Amino acid sequence: MKTKSPILGLTMGDPAGIGPEICLRVLGDPAVHKNCVPVLFGDREVLERVAKKLPQLPRPQQFQTLTPAEFAAQSVVTQPVIIDCQAIAGRAVRPGTISAECGRAGYIYIEKTIEAALAGKISGVATAPIHKEALRLSGVPHPGHTEIFTALTGAKRSCMMLYSEALTVSMVTTHIGYHEVPGKLSMERILNVIELTAQTMRQLLGRVPHIGVCGLNPHAGEHGLFGQQEEEKFVVPAVKKARQKKLKVTGPLVPDAVFTEGQRGKYDAIVTLYHDQGHIPFKMLAFDTGVNTTLGLPIIRTSVDHGTAFDIAWQGQASATSLLAALQVAARLAVGNPKGHL
Amino acid sequence: MKTKSPILGLTMGDPAGIGPEICLRVLGDPAVHKNCVPVLFGDREVLERVAKKLPQLPRPQQFQTLTPAEFAAQSVVTQPVIIDCQAIAGRAVRPGTISAECGRAGYIYIEKTIEAALAGKISGVATAPIHKEALRLSGVPHPGHTEIFTALTGAKRSCMMLYSEALTVSMVTTHIGYHEVPGKLSMERILNVIELTAQTMRQLLGRVPHIGVCGLNPHAGEHGLFGQQEEEKFVVPAVKKARQKKLKVTGPLVPDAVFTEGQRGKYDAIVTLYHDQGHIPFKMLAFDTGVNTTLGLPIIRTSVDHGTAFDIAWQGQASATSLLAALQVAARLAVGNPKGHL
Repeated sequence: MKTKSPILGLTMGDPAGIGPEICLRVLGDPAVHKNCVPVLFGDREVLERVAKKLPQLPRPQQFQTLTPAEFAAQSVVTQPVIIDCQAIAGRAVRPGTISAECGRAGYIYIEKTIEAALAGKISGVATAPIHKEALRLSGVPHPGHTEIFTALTGAKRSCMMLYSEALTVSMVTTHIGYHEVPGKLSMERILNVIELTAQTMRQLLGRVPHIGVCGLNPHAGEHGLFGQQEEEKFVVPAVKKARQKKLKVTGPLVPDAVFTEGQRGKYDAIVTLYHDQGHIPFKMLAFDTGVNTTLGLPIIRTSVDHGTAFDIAWQGQASATSLLAALQVAARLAVGNPKGHL
Repeated sequence: MKTKSPILGLTMGDPAGIGPEICLRVLGDPAVHKNCVPVLFGDREVLERVAKKLPQLPRPQQFQTLTPAEFAAQSVVTQPVIIDCQAIAGRAVRPGTISAECGRAGYIYIEKTIEAALAGKISGVATAPIHKEALRLSGVPHPGHTEIFTALTGAKRSCMMLYSEALTVSMVTTHIGYHEVPGKLSMERILNVIELTAQTMRQLLGRVPHIGVCGLNPHAGEHGLFGQQEEEKFVVPAVKKARQKKLKVTGPLVPDAVFTEGQRGKYDAIVTLYHDQGHIPFKMLAFDTGVNTTLGLPIIRTSVDHGTAFDIAWQGQASATSLLAALQVAARLAVGNPKGHL
């Protein structure tokens, strides 16, 4: 499937969020067509309704619409296309509102996109935001995209990495409660994330990347003074093992020092141990331009780095910048450009 | 003691760190003398040794030297002065090395400074960095400055606040292990920090400040989806109670969203629940210029926002910027300038 213009899946996200409008905008963006052929997995009725409300958006009518089965049967697409998953009726969507129906629809788009990717119909996937509470209400047993992709692709190990020009961070744990983090840390898990991060960054930079690994406690525990020696028990041996595998790794690093201006440039990527340890600095530096990628999957997966933004959904105010960036990163990974800046 | 030029204590910090050199530099800085009369609590022998090694520093000989008892007996000082605490011999200090002796000396400087402040001999204190592990080795039962000041002044409630032009954060917990944080949260503690922060910011800004309060879990728990509902149990009632007291407070806020460029300007100060939640964003924005203050004490206390920097100690490379800022903030608080920008 590696062509100059890869065919990339795009999921519509939670229908009640900003997904439908930003996806339509991206689907009709000539700049996008230069890098890839976008295939939007969503609901045609929902797209028609949002386009009717917001005249500034591209019309769904201008794109070919296929069912998932038709897309599976078709040889190859060369123009932007909508895959009508018929997961929810257009009139059933209450913009800006959490619902099980919308949570379920968002999940179905992901499911159909993964099927297409595993079947080789698309080279990668960029995802629009879903709402985690809506997802939970719908009975889906996964808290977010990363976990869904990991489960549905049967990946043995995976992790979330946030990429931007200014900073790249990957995470050992993500969407779990604060109190659960220490219990989820192990040498193996940290080593996995170091390896996956180093592998992707090496591919992207064309050289051995320098990976930093954060400690868990204030001041990285200050030699066991704070915490339960998570640094000594888990981070130190993971770094040692990674070095034995010829990776360039430094840690445990002091969490509040490594993201300061002078320090973060020392590392090509920083492995963090919990959601906010990585997300707080990343969002400060790349609020609107960050790309979320899932490493370790058999398929390329990138995502916007923002939520469903229910407060401005269906109002025409949402920015498509992050989704555009996500699609661009997926395209670069898909054409396997080792010298590309991700 | 409120005069145009307040008399301010300065502690020398851990003798093996960068404290001695930055304190000497500040003591001899004419810009400092315009705002306050600095009184350095340290060791004359240590200062002589570091000055001998680094010819660019002011000579200790140019300042009057008093014992703590002499200073207590003296009516008032009008020139920079060294209080020779004789806590450690000059030759006993091994620069850049953790030791119980240096930890103990650093503690004695703090103790003597607090005594002078409580006796009304100085109007406030700015502290140079101590090393937490050295402090522990020396047998002092407090993990850091904030806790020492709280204990020795008998303060009923206190909290750490980090101030800079770009961002101000205060903290509900500080130097404890990651895993201990959830157990230390309560409605009362969060309310205390909200009140102390609002009180100081009101004094400094001359108006009712807007205080934001972070949640604990990823996405502030996303309505109970992650964590043990710490947001609902502790943050929500604390915010409610603070509002009943006519404070302008918003929360629980999503931790990875509130520090982004567009959001942080909405709040005059942000209450964070643990060390790195506040320190990571703060140090990114104010690495070298931040001031650490302890709120709720009967005396004014500010501090540098960096560590002992053992790797560059006694080498003449350390910047005194943060210590100068700390002294300036203490001076402004001491002269009680409600319109001052802190």
